[in-house]
Amino acid sequence: MVILGIDPGTRVTGYGILEKTPAGLTHIGHGEIKPPHKKILSVALNDVFESLMALVSAHQPDALVIETIFYGKNVKSLIRQGHLRGIALLVGPLNGLPVYEYSPLEIKQAVVGYGRAEKHQVQQMVTRLLGLDSPPPPDASDALAMAICHAHSMRKDQT
Amino acid sequence: MVILGIDPGTRVTGYGILEKTPAGLTHIGHGEIKPPHKKILSVALNDVFESLMALVSAHQPDALVIETIFYGKNVKSLIRQGHLRGIALLVGPLNGLPVYEYSPLEIKQAVVGYGRAEKHQVQQMVTRLLGLDSPPPPDASDALAMAICHAHSMRKDQT
Repeated sequence: MVILGIDPGTRVTGYGILEKTPAGLTHIGHGEIKPPHKKILSVALNDVFESLMALVSAHQPDALVIETIFYGKNVKSLIRQGHLRGIALLVGPLNGLPVYEYSPLEIKQAVVGYGRAEKHQVQQMVTRLLGLDSPPPPDASDALAMAICHAHSMRKDQT
Repeated sequence: MVILGIDPGTRVTGYGILEKTPAGLTHIGHGEIKPPHKKILSVALNDVFESLMALVSAHQPDALVIETIFYGKNVKSLIRQGHLRGIALLVGPLNGLPVYEYSPLEIKQAVVGYGRAEKHQVQQMVTRLLGLDSPPPPDASDALAMAICHAHSMRKDQT
């Protein structure tokens, strides 16, 4: 089973792909999507959309994973993140794929074993669990952590 | 020039289509998109997306118009509206169309002549300006008002 984790952010959308086999987890890839068109919002959203669609096409995941939105931000940032999140969610049904959602607490609990872990602790554990040579950038690391969380939890309820 | 106004809402997404000619404004159509799949968010978002794509395909608009998000709501509602708004914005570049944004104040000013007009006043003016037999439902009326606002203002900056 191939799992694609997506961390939609207003500046950077991180992604992480891994495969779950009976032998364990295999790292397939990760990266960051940074739209160059900063001036026109709809064009930047389309850049992220096209990149995510291309990732699904290239890696044929069986499930998409996304994080529950973090409420403690300012209102403008929440709306912008809502835009990106809507687009990431759309990529699921457009490709016939289920989407699963986990809270930051669940993801940290699954990866670090501690729900209030710091970002660099998540980065370290993702690097170790997937046997990577170097730690992925923070947003890609978060996306890989979501995929790991789903690989362990296998939630049934779709978002 | 054909203009498609979109009013993305968490329960109902209104739309309104009109044509601007040298002779004035012609009403083409309006309606409401209500996704039946309430349980799975990504599927409901996809319903709205598919409906908007079908509208663009059927009516071949030259521009999309959307309202600036209204900040005075609760955080959950803002995020949900952000999801829908992201999807509505995406429909522009996916079809090679510019997207324009107006604030509720600008829209009411353009349609009623008074920025703090009530919803039913907008409905009445839209009905009168477009020579409709009966007032459109509120969300469709708002979407038509956006299209009227753009027909009058012809903003250059895209969103």
